[in-house]
Amino acid sequence: MRIIVIGAGGVLGKAVSVELSVRHEIVGVGRTSGDFHADMREITSLRTVFQKVGKADAIVCTAGSVHFGPWAELTPEKFDIGLRDKLMGQVNVVLAGQEFLNDGGSVTLTSGILSEDPIRYGAAASLVNGALESFVRGAAIELARELRINASVRPSSKSRWVPSGHTFVVTSRCQPATRL
Amino acid sequence: MRIIVIGAGGVLGKAVSVELSVRHEIVGVGRTSGDFHADMREITSLRTVFQKVGKADAIVCTAGSVHFGPWAELTPEKFDIGLRDKLMGQVNVVLAGQEFLNDGGSVTLTSGILSEDPIRYGAAASLVNGALESFVRGAAIELARELRINASVRPSSKSRWVPSGHTFVVTSRCQPATRL
Repeated sequence: MRIIVIGAGGVLGKAVSVELSVRHEIVGVGRTSGDFHADMREITSLRTVFQKVGKADAIVCTAGSVHFGPWAELTPEKFDIGLRDKLMGQVNVVLAGQEFLNDGGSVTLTSGILSEDPIRYGAAASLVNGALESFVRGAAIELARELRINASVRPSSKSRWVPSGHTFVVTSRCQPATRL
Repeated sequence: MRIIVIGAGGVLGKAVSVELSVRHEIVGVGRTSGDFHADMREITSLRTVFQKVGKADAIVCTAGSVHFGPWAELTPEKFDIGLRDKLMGQVNVVLAGQEFLNDGGSVTLTSGILSEDPIRYGAAASLVNGALESFVRGAAIELARELRINASVRPSSKSRWVPSGHTFVVTSRCQPATRL
């Protein structure tokens, strides 16, 4: 299959790309790295890249930023970071990418465990992840041409967090990236 | 108790207000109706009203608009309607309202069944409802002074939809408003 990985330069995206490249052709897209560059906060930026890439069988999106910080310091503007980037970025991937998928193709988004299991400093991230999971449920019943959509809900692997310096999430249910 | 109902002029807000007013003092807030007027899309508008109202024991928010429409016609701008109005409006209610609640007070937001059970034309609404439910989980563990937060997930009552002309949601699990 021909698979577009958006966020291919990130820790999770790299692991997904390595794993999938054994059997598939990977087209890596990133904001500043990869075969093609796109800012997924702007749907026109994604459309431009999809037009260059052409048809694909699957799109995987592992990209997206959210704000983490103490509850007492949260403002609408801090929620807006995740709404614009991870949430609408991934929604834009679906809206723009669907017409470039072959019949029966799939989109896989990346949510995260915080939608169900909250942590301190994570309210804005929980919000975005819950939104993505319910969006996927809504989109799944309306996509045309037997296109499919899924969300990877627990992509965290304990090992992948260590080098990045994020120590918010360590749970017994984490999965190694190779098992995603 | 002294309870602020935001969206008190709506079908659900009216039902909640009638039910609660038997035992509690109700302060009704609406965009254009009620004892006080606020546009919850603007956190400053809410703050101004909370300052006028003073301390309360509970805040209930039943307000919020989202876009319903065919999948093929969805754009980032149509998602933005619900992000600004129902989603960030209700988040703003929590962020602005918390300091006006007495210790141990509560906020009750209104989500909806579409977070789990999608319908055609409802992807943008599913997204917003899922976001609210996960936000509530995240906020619940960080709120100060033993404040509590909940979301009413299935507020729809079959009877209340009939006069409003919305026929999207009719399920066997709907609850009459008096049982919320």
